[in-house]
Amino acid sequence: MDKIERKQVVVESFNTDFRRCLNYETLGKDLLNCAEQHANKRGFGVDDITPKNHAWVLSRLTIEMQEMPRMFAKLEISTWVESLYRLFTNRNFEIKEIGGNVIGYARSIWAMIDRDTRQPIELEKLYFEKFHDHILPDYPCPIQPQTRLRPLKDVTPCSEHYIVASDIDYNGHVNSIKYIQFLCDIFSLDYQRQHHLKRVEIAYINESVFGETLSFYKKEIEVNTYQVEIRNTPTNTVVRGLLCFD
Amino acid sequence: MDKIERKQVVVESFNTDFRRCLNYETLGKDLLNCAEQHANKRGFGVDDITPKNHAWVLSRLTIEMQEMPRMFAKLEISTWVESLYRLFTNRNFEIKEIGGNVIGYARSIWAMIDRDTRQPIELEKLYFEKFHDHILPDYPCPIQPQTRLRPLKDVTPCSEHYIVASDIDYNGHVNSIKYIQFLCDIFSLDYQRQHHLKRVEIAYINESVFGETLSFYKKEIEVNTYQVEIRNTPTNTVVRGLLCFD
Repeated sequence: MDKIERKQVVVESFNTDFRRCLNYETLGKDLLNCAEQHANKRGFGVDDITPKNHAWVLSRLTIEMQEMPRMFAKLEISTWVESLYRLFTNRNFEIKEIGGNVIGYARSIWAMIDRDTRQPIELEKLYFEKFHDHILPDYPCPIQPQTRLRPLKDVTPCSEHYIVASDIDYNGHVNSIKYIQFLCDIFSLDYQRQHHLKRVEIAYINESVFGETLSFYKKEIEVNTYQVEIRNTPTNTVVRGLLCFD
Repeated sequence: MDKIERKQVVVESFNTDFRRCLNYETLGKDLLNCAEQHANKRGFGVDDITPKNHAWVLSRLTIEMQEMPRMFAKLEISTWVESLYRLFTNRNFEIKEIGGNVIGYARSIWAMIDRDTRQPIELEKLYFEKFHDHILPDYPCPIQPQTRLRPLKDVTPCSEHYIVASDIDYNGHVNSIKYIQFLCDIFSLDYQRQHHLKRVEIAYINESVFGETLSFYKKEIEVNTYQVEIRNTPTNTVVRGLLCFD
């Protein structure tokens, strides 16, 4: 079986933003759905691991887009596993316009947990047999790995969001992809009209649940580059991020 | 050309809710993307009407689902135009599991406006030629038309939402589909775990824009049947709805 899984998607009208371009939330879902398809066909997808009471947990996600495709564009997303470690696996992505250029790449790091104990699973020990035919270490993913995101200090929240039912996934926590939307929404419509969001880095630190209120923090560390944080209490960080606008 | 347009969609993992079932927001997008595809192929889609500075505006939407399909289900959505009037057109939908049963239907009413004046376009006058080969009045859509939703009186808001950039569409207003999610999110996770949302009626009354705060109101008018409202000021109603849970 090919080590690379490919999935074609169309930028549907009602998945576009105020510019009629693909939004980061839909792109994030497309990437993770492609990852799911890759894993399912190779024996380590949700259907294989749920009966063992295991669940994949997204730990790091970095997306870099030269441009955002417009309404009705046809895309091919490719994904492959770059490496497998004791507790983590690295999975990369390429995003290409069909009949056109590669317009972006993404890197992700995943852990697997036991759904009851929430403890990490020894991936290399328990899943090496499943993975070993599917690792592709040398395929190019020419974007920088995620930077080390340090805690923000001495900041005050710039906005907040009360967690609602549609934010919650099957594991009972806020869906990983929702945080991408929350991070983008820290920035105003005017700012986003003027600046293309070129690179998003997200580090998933803690889980948040229904009924909590998320507070958003940001700090401009270079021109149009923002370190961001989401907390569910003033001292408990849920997500750290870095957003780089053109 | 067939008067009915069909579109196949898969219930992707990252478009499911806390039960691993399709969520109403994604279903709503799937319906409207299918409508867009129907209109585009027949000469009255967004690519045809945007150059004339016209835009489709959703006025009423009613969805009734016997059940919500589970993760990885394959669906076929069908849509057709039931009728065309002076200022409105009625478009219906059928939702079927491929190789299985019809699991739901939807009814919608659309107007077309001039994007600058925001005034309605005389649909029958300007677009009858485009439409007249594509009207299918007799195809069954065995769900009740939308009821008359009267204003809620003497209610206090139960929650609110600050409008963010990702809520906004190309026309500069909150995306029609976002309101479906907002209406569902009036109800707690616990309530939604216990009750299947069988029927949703939405009447789009006024537009709301970036920076406004939406307030949500609900009133139980029969057991598990709620009249709901969204306002952007205490007296200005944006959306009225009716949600019927099992």
